[in-house]
Amino acid sequence: MKSDIDSLMQANNLDALLVMGAGQHNPAMVYFTGGSHLTSADLIKKRGEPPVLFHGPMERDEAAKSGLITRSYSTYPVSELDKEANGDRLRVSVLRYKKMLQDVGISTGRVALYGKLEVGPILTILTALAQEMPGLELVGYQEQDILAEAMMTKDASEIARIRAMGKVTTQVVGKTADFLTGQRVKNAMLIKPNGEPLTLGEVKAQINFWLAELGAESPDSLIFSIGHDAGVPHSGGNPTDVLRLGQTIVYDIFPCELGGGYFYDFTRTWCLGFAPDETQVLYENVRTVYEKVKDALQVNQPFKRYQQMTCELFEAMGHPTILSTPQTEIGYVHSLGHGIGLKVHERPGSGLAAQAGDCLVPGVVATIEPGLYYPERGFGVRLEDSFWVTPEGRFEILAPYPLDLVLPII
Amino acid sequence: MKSDIDSLMQANNLDALLVMGAGQHNPAMVYFTGGSHLTSADLIKKRGEPPVLFHGPMERDEAAKSGLITRSYSTYPVSELDKEANGDRLRVSVLRYKKMLQDVGISTGRVALYGKLEVGPILTILTALAQEMPGLELVGYQEQDILAEAMMTKDASEIARIRAMGKVTTQVVGKTADFLTGQRVKNAMLIKPNGEPLTLGEVKAQINFWLAELGAESPDSLIFSIGHDAGVPHSGGNPTDVLRLGQTIVYDIFPCELGGGYFYDFTRTWCLGFAPDETQVLYENVRTVYEKVKDALQVNQPFKRYQQMTCELFEAMGHPTILSTPQTEIGYVHSLGHGIGLKVHERPGSGLAAQAGDCLVPGVVATIEPGLYYPERGFGVRLEDSFWVTPEGRFEILAPYPLDLVLPII
Repeated sequence: MKSDIDSLMQANNLDALLVMGAGQHNPAMVYFTGGSHLTSADLIKKRGEPPVLFHGPMERDEAAKSGLITRSYSTYPVSELDKEANGDRLRVSVLRYKKMLQDVGISTGRVALYGKLEVGPILTILTALAQEMPGLELVGYQEQDILAEAMMTKDASEIARIRAMGKVTTQVVGKTADFLTGQRVKNAMLIKPNGEPLTLGEVKAQINFWLAELGAESPDSLIFSIGHDAGVPHSGGNPTDVLRLGQTIVYDIFPCELGGGYFYDFTRTWCLGFAPDETQVLYENVRTVYEKVKDALQVNQPFKRYQQMTCELFEAMGHPTILSTPQTEIGYVHSLGHGIGLKVHERPGSGLAAQAGDCLVPGVVATIEPGLYYPERGFGVRLEDSFWVTPEGRFEILAPYPLDLVLPII
Repeated sequence: MKSDIDSLMQANNLDALLVMGAGQHNPAMVYFTGGSHLTSADLIKKRGEPPVLFHGPMERDEAAKSGLITRSYSTYPVSELDKEANGDRLRVSVLRYKKMLQDVGISTGRVALYGKLEVGPILTILTALAQEMPGLELVGYQEQDILAEAMMTKDASEIARIRAMGKVTTQVVGKTADFLTGQRVKNAMLIKPNGEPLTLGEVKAQINFWLAELGAESPDSLIFSIGHDAGVPHSGGNPTDVLRLGQTIVYDIFPCELGGGYFYDFTRTWCLGFAPDETQVLYENVRTVYEKVKDALQVNQPFKRYQQMTCELFEAMGHPTILSTPQTEIGYVHSLGHGIGLKVHERPGSGLAAQAGDCLVPGVVATIEPGLYYPERGFGVRLEDSFWVTPEGRFEILAPYPLDLVLPII
């Protein structure tokens, strides 16, 4: 949890965290600021002290909204840095980082690096900074990423934000179902009022529209795919495809707060009008596994234990899985779930190779999403909900929604 | 232009470009792939050869849509890499990069780095890669970034995409004007049907809704700020502020294609109902400078020449500018404009310290956006359009829209 950061820094011998980049779509920066419109900023958190947010002079009001201690880049005038750097533009950046670090009391020690930004220039700047400050160790890769560790368990205010995003998600899913079932049918296809077939692209535009209406966005896209594409787990779907009755639709939606805040993650599999027998069988296999795994979940257990269980259940039903056939592209081909938060994929992981600490401890929010995929047979099925492990160790779906396969067309 | 990349690589002695990260909201990756839903990918372009896109096995269909040569990460099985790396997870990544580079024929030489992603882990991986492949020079910062140089001039297909985004922008601006002027007024404030005052936050939600409806998004937010906040150039505006007649609204909207493609950039300053005399005077100052600069624009000139001109014009009107007072926070406080494309800020820059090559050459798309800011007096004014320098050397506004200050309230 966020309140663990100082002790995690201590345990991992880190003296400071340096977070770089924009105020949006940048998880580590949003974690500290709550989210802002800063186009470019730096944040330094020294161990045992509150973070300091460095910002451009034109963005002083945006920076102030974070409630953090702020300092404008104009504290380090470019004209002076330029003189010290003899006009070397790269060195101007290096010197500014040096001064920012020194101003928060960091001249030596271990500083962990965070932030999502263009890697090219910053790689060179940080390499030069390490030479400029020989007592400083810049820590890129951490065997155990301490911020990922802190982010893995959510506090009450984070749960409230994820729950609100879950509500938006299921509202949009409900609107989608109503929209589809409200269309006319001709030649076993959904037809628009103008007589032309409705396309996947139009449905997706509609979904994005409802998300925006509710103050959410879908930065990593969404999956609304049909038939063969539904059999490829991460296929987004072909925008010109039409919607035929009886075909399988995989609808995987993972929106976040506008500006790149907290995510929700959710999947349903639908058939319009009716489900062919082999789809029905596949659906029941997935649903059985989903229910069995859900009922088996216990607090503090390694998440991968349930991946193992999922593979064994599917194999007992006769499906290939990555447990026995690691390279398989049919059957059960991915891991059971993942934490969600400021990224759509966070710890804990559920892969068979997941870290020892990837356990379902209180505060975790994680997806459970078993699925089966047979693209050459023209379908796939996945069901997914996001669960919160409560402080009491219960597993709570943050946004419940019916699991039904068939959307009846009247 | 994109077709110049090989010659730019040659001139800068680069043997390959390595582009890392997601398929969306990642300008360098979008430049090569056109945009895709890949959650994580690598692209290597060897000089004189077409780029190769490396992708996760579950995303093979998304990768194929790019039309590029593709190769799945499953070509380098983790199980084998893991053996070679003795279980060192970091080294698995290093070895995979080594093999990908070798597979496109790069064992030595200079490789420029691109991509927007988490800097911490990749910094360590690339540092280790450089040790693993001593003949390789990984180039982060480039004195002249060759991709930025290529991106600075747009080809016909890029102009078509920016123009389409301009059309979306002005449609949304028109909807915003209609929405505001269609409200009721009470106590000199805009009032909703339920009798409560309309807020800035509600207007912004509405704007995002219209953007989504038209297939666009606003990843870096938008500025719709009023009164004092309108006097701070990058203030996003306070969501609970109400809209009073006669106050100054700065409306700066810079949306891009859904998924982080091409941008447009546009600003108008509005007063609802009427403009107080001092706002009118300020507006006329800005508009005069906007028109004079627009009329003065000539192909192939350094962009900063017009920044100089803008400062001189404003100073002659009695306003402080950053030409004579670099630290000023009132008057004219920023540069005249910037290129737009896959980033909202691209080359050419117009700052007085811009690079020698930052000229208004054919193919450039750049903003012209003079403004005046007096936050303590409760207002600011900015006008902005995005211009294309055509192959014939003309300056064309890609999405024309009236410049009027007052939105009449009936």
